[in-house]
Amino acid sequence: MKENNVLDFLRAQQSGYLSGEDISQKLKVSRSAVWKEIQSLRGLGYEIEAQPHWGYRLAGIPDKLFADEISHALGTKFIGRRIISYDSLDSTNDAAFGLGEHGAKEGACVFSEFQKKGRGRLGRSWASPKGKNLILSVLLRPLFSPSEVSKITLMTAVSTVKAIKTLTGKTLGIKWPNDIYFKDKKAGGILTEMSAELDRVNFVVVGIGVNVNSSPKELPPGSISLKEVTGKEISRISFAQELLRQIEKDYLKLKNRDAANLEKEWEDFSLTSGKRVVATVLGRRIQGYATGIDKEGALWIRRDNGLQERIFAGDIEHLRPAHE
Amino acid sequence: MKENNVLDFLRAQQSGYLSGEDISQKLKVSRSAVWKEIQSLRGLGYEIEAQPHWGYRLAGIPDKLFADEISHALGTKFIGRRIISYDSLDSTNDAAFGLGEHGAKEGACVFSEFQKKGRGRLGRSWASPKGKNLILSVLLRPLFSPSEVSKITLMTAVSTVKAIKTLTGKTLGIKWPNDIYFKDKKAGGILTEMSAELDRVNFVVVGIGVNVNSSPKELPPGSISLKEVTGKEISRISFAQELLRQIEKDYLKLKNRDAANLEKEWEDFSLTSGKRVVATVLGRRIQGYATGIDKEGALWIRRDNGLQERIFAGDIEHLRPAHE
Repeated sequence: MKENNVLDFLRAQQSGYLSGEDISQKLKVSRSAVWKEIQSLRGLGYEIEAQPHWGYRLAGIPDKLFADEISHALGTKFIGRRIISYDSLDSTNDAAFGLGEHGAKEGACVFSEFQKKGRGRLGRSWASPKGKNLILSVLLRPLFSPSEVSKITLMTAVSTVKAIKTLTGKTLGIKWPNDIYFKDKKAGGILTEMSAELDRVNFVVVGIGVNVNSSPKELPPGSISLKEVTGKEISRISFAQELLRQIEKDYLKLKNRDAANLEKEWEDFSLTSGKRVVATVLGRRIQGYATGIDKEGALWIRRDNGLQERIFAGDIEHLRPAHE
Repeated sequence: MKENNVLDFLRAQQSGYLSGEDISQKLKVSRSAVWKEIQSLRGLGYEIEAQPHWGYRLAGIPDKLFADEISHALGTKFIGRRIISYDSLDSTNDAAFGLGEHGAKEGACVFSEFQKKGRGRLGRSWASPKGKNLILSVLLRPLFSPSEVSKITLMTAVSTVKAIKTLTGKTLGIKWPNDIYFKDKKAGGILTEMSAELDRVNFVVVGIGVNVNSSPKELPPGSISLKEVTGKEISRISFAQELLRQIEKDYLKLKNRDAANLEKEWEDFSLTSGKRVVATVLGRRIQGYATGIDKEGALWIRRDNGLQERIFAGDIEHLRPAHE
């Protein structure tokens, strides 16, 4: 008997009670097997009420990123059709990279409550308290050249902003190319990595970290969580589901070369466009005015000497205008 | 007692005999332990003569890519300081990729006598009979952006051509970007793969396959081995060593941005420059005259309408001029 069979019965009957007798008959297992499953689900954090004569009722699901909870009623075609969920691991990107190397299908996802070696761009650390935020990596297999992969970072940032908006009503912004900001504080980030030949990608792993329910003291300075932004806790499961659905929609646009809307969105959500910036690209410093992001996802910077620079990735510092 | 201790003694004494007594005293092990090692070395294919009263003499080393043989007197600083040698495995590139992910140092090499799933560019198969040719992958960690990695392919092709020239006196050519040709037949190829973020490479794996001692019937049509080119067998160990030395020299030039000579060499060795070609780049067909290879390793093609195209990677077909 699979654990989620009992769980599925309880879910379907969420408004009322279901007797152990009914469950055991429908699943064709003993009453004691049902009772053991109920105990096991409770051990995982499911609140299951038991009333004599009435039976069992699912009163609450745990705030845990269980693969089964994320999959339930997810409704996507390929993103998240396979989900592996960890309590703790070194890095979800590394785990998803391993899946990629072993031939896992596009859309496979790795979630973890905690990362022992969480990474941001350029090998920097990504710290996140256990069980409070969202950390996931998605495996993609686009027929792209390596230089096209920067669009996947921006696309994922756009999907994340839209998922946050759907759940909270708040519109956050994208600090080009890979960070999600609320005002001047970081709420999330994207880390895109790939395995590639020179002219084509073998696979891409997109890592997403969003500060969801963490408190200020649990986060690095300069960070903010969605809970702080909205004043209330957010269901990480609902957020994860909305994010996967949004990624699927946006990624299909990108793959089908039908990305006009997406390109408008990454420009609309951009906090970098229109600002004075200093960009550091492989050690080179470029200071100027960020004029916008093009169709390839590249940032254009007009230097003070009038020269236009086009950069595909780099560290960006937003400068305040001189008159502020 | 490590196996290569007895071997090292025998090597040092290659011109004369060494008594079992001497070896056992110097290594501080029993006569019977020495005898067991001799048997074990013979099992690996080492020819060890034994003369009553005189002792042992190393008469021949096996034609096997043993790590210890390649390392012996290699003299490089970092390329091949760690060598892992297989009798058979799926793919040396995959094995070297795994080393890269687990933090192995730059220069680690994987050799194999045979690949069960040998690959060429774009997932095509790379077939090579067991024990006749050279198949290796080298792990590199350049501080490069992904777009710079195409230079590593060309550099490796140049190193391979130079190593072949040193060993055989024959100058083969490079069919841009990654194949080694003798006249119109393929003698080898390079497969470069990387793990990367958008703006920097995590690591690069360069796979090299060269047809060394295989006979025509052992190779795919359109292929040729160095043995066919030169009319004689070539020591694969000597070739492997020369190749690793040459890669180290050329790679250091590339890393130190001191690549003027290299750029001249990849143009000099190019069989593609000056030919009419059809290039296929991610499904797009470009026909024209290949004018040359630039500093970034990109091929320039002048289309018949006069338009210049610059391509970083792709499939190239050399066309014969109309008057031939």
